[in-house]
Amino acid sequence: MKALVYGGPGQKALTEVPKPTLQQPGDALVRITHTTICGTDLHILKGDVPTCLPGTTLGHEGVGVIEAVGSAVSNFHVGDHVLISCISSCGKCAFCRKGMYSHCTTGGWILGNTIDGTQAEYVRIPHADTSLYAIPPETSEEALVMLSDILPTGFECGVLNGKVAPGGTVAIVGAGPIGLAALLTAQFYSPSRIIMIDLDDNRLQVALGFGATDAVNSGKGSAVDAVMALTDGLGVDTAIEAVGIAPTFELCQGIVAAGGTIANVGVHGHKVDLHLETLWARNIAITTRLVDTASTDMLLKTVVARKLDPARLITHRFTLDDVMAAYETFGQAAQSKALKVIISP
Amino acid sequence: MKALVYGGPGQKALTEVPKPTLQQPGDALVRITHTTICGTDLHILKGDVPTCLPGTTLGHEGVGVIEAVGSAVSNFHVGDHVLISCISSCGKCAFCRKGMYSHCTTGGWILGNTIDGTQAEYVRIPHADTSLYAIPPETSEEALVMLSDILPTGFECGVLNGKVAPGGTVAIVGAGPIGLAALLTAQFYSPSRIIMIDLDDNRLQVALGFGATDAVNSGKGSAVDAVMALTDGLGVDTAIEAVGIAPTFELCQGIVAAGGTIANVGVHGHKVDLHLETLWARNIAITTRLVDTASTDMLLKTVVARKLDPARLITHRFTLDDVMAAYETFGQAAQSKALKVIISP
Repeated sequence: MKALVYGGPGQKALTEVPKPTLQQPGDALVRITHTTICGTDLHILKGDVPTCLPGTTLGHEGVGVIEAVGSAVSNFHVGDHVLISCISSCGKCAFCRKGMYSHCTTGGWILGNTIDGTQAEYVRIPHADTSLYAIPPETSEEALVMLSDILPTGFECGVLNGKVAPGGTVAIVGAGPIGLAALLTAQFYSPSRIIMIDLDDNRLQVALGFGATDAVNSGKGSAVDAVMALTDGLGVDTAIEAVGIAPTFELCQGIVAAGGTIANVGVHGHKVDLHLETLWARNIAITTRLVDTASTDMLLKTVVARKLDPARLITHRFTLDDVMAAYETFGQAAQSKALKVIISP
Repeated sequence: MKALVYGGPGQKALTEVPKPTLQQPGDALVRITHTTICGTDLHILKGDVPTCLPGTTLGHEGVGVIEAVGSAVSNFHVGDHVLISCISSCGKCAFCRKGMYSHCTTGGWILGNTIDGTQAEYVRIPHADTSLYAIPPETSEEALVMLSDILPTGFECGVLNGKVAPGGTVAIVGAGPIGLAALLTAQFYSPSRIIMIDLDDNRLQVALGFGATDAVNSGKGSAVDAVMALTDGLGVDTAIEAVGIAPTFELCQGIVAAGGTIANVGVHGHKVDLHLETLWARNIAITTRLVDTASTDMLLKTVVARKLDPARLITHRFTLDDVMAAYETFGQAAQSKALKVIISP
């Protein structure tokens, strides 16, 4: 079968590899119908993720059809249409038992990292019963790819950790796909203001179309001053960091209100300064989280109920044969205006 | 009357000052029977608290007897024995209405900071109805001085923010009075382990007597290794930072378990490193808080019910005339083995 294989820093190739087979009784074999590219895939290609070894098929998002299941799988059957979670979870370890699937002792984020992933014609899914979701009738399978990772990530790491609440004020730093996923799901809780902050006017325009109440271009004047002007000088109840670099985390510290929360969503490669010399007395919380995809079932219900339209995040479509062009489009988002790109084998 | 007056960095003097008078309808005038010294008073004397101007009477803890009340005071009467909260709160502003008294727009930590404090024969208490507490019968007035600040601080900023829970694991970094206050109140929630970490063997011995299950001297070998050995290599669910310097906050980052909380209690003078390059994926929370004393009433009930014995924190007693010796004893705790010192006018 065809798969996009990581070849070491800067290297990737669409190549012919053996079709995966069932290895454990809990495995399912899924024929991929749609997958996508994540910012994390770009991190891997930069060499930032040492756990991902050359020779690994990339990708941790996708939907497809079950081709085979192991003897222990009881929730799914051959022919079922399924959503693949980016997090594999055994459902049995201490972390899984408390819903912290991201830290499953035999799972977590392994797809397209420590085992072969979804940017291929087929993928083996371990712990299938607790790592796949049935696709509800009358939903767009293609759109549900957004529920493999980015919508649960924006929702769990940003909105839930950030305690977004009715009447509250929210700032989202970074209007990329994850920041926009936080923006879409923050609206479940009816905050009074959602201020989107980015350097890219195009993405800020998209954010206003997606329901942001205000847009601040942090490259044009002080974003701290702009947020303070919008919040009676108090700052925001929730500051969501959706970039993953020091300056954006610093900005969050400048705009969080006393009693507020900084919810970190970004993947950081370096330490940052924490200004405890002022924050110690500000009654704030800072949270981090690798998405657990504990909310996937809830999010599926919001899609069915038309409270969430994941298709809005999709801007481009490619075949698997054109996966290199898909990476180019996704990697140069400022030029291509890409949000999420769909790849269909 | 006599009062201990701040004279600028390094300067303090017991001097004769005018007896305070009622200034607002919500004020009460309290005759101090017992007060104490806080680590924050030492910070002021180092010049670290620019809001405290020379000429201010120090002290924000105490108990006493009401001498006079303003026309708006309805909860208290002349002759009532009262506990003074270190936090003054109007009870009416947006912050007070959500229990965040520390950020009261006309109160907060003002006693012995922006207005004259309790290390004197008399003190004026603004917003008396919501800043004083009736002393319950059959309790030691002297011991209740521990409820002005350190017990609510250890409890709210450490135990509550740190989400101490039955069966959980706790590490408290710093076995000074605040760390010991956290240790005493953490036991309300029946954690399975409370590991006390300090450089001072005497204080660690005290902590073991106060209910710590384990003591780690961080000056003798790696405290991270010691905590990991005590927690099956997982780290602690709750790490309470009760010192206020970069190395102890760094230690907390090394010992917090995935899914755990670092509850900062320490007063920090400088920024610290936050290792988001590893913590971003660890599902942790970091909290800060200036004590709200929202738990004072609850803590008084635990004293009455004999679940908490605040007197254990008191090691030395002085008269107000000997306040200079009291500061010397408290300031050289390693030699004097002092925890809290009581000063009685």
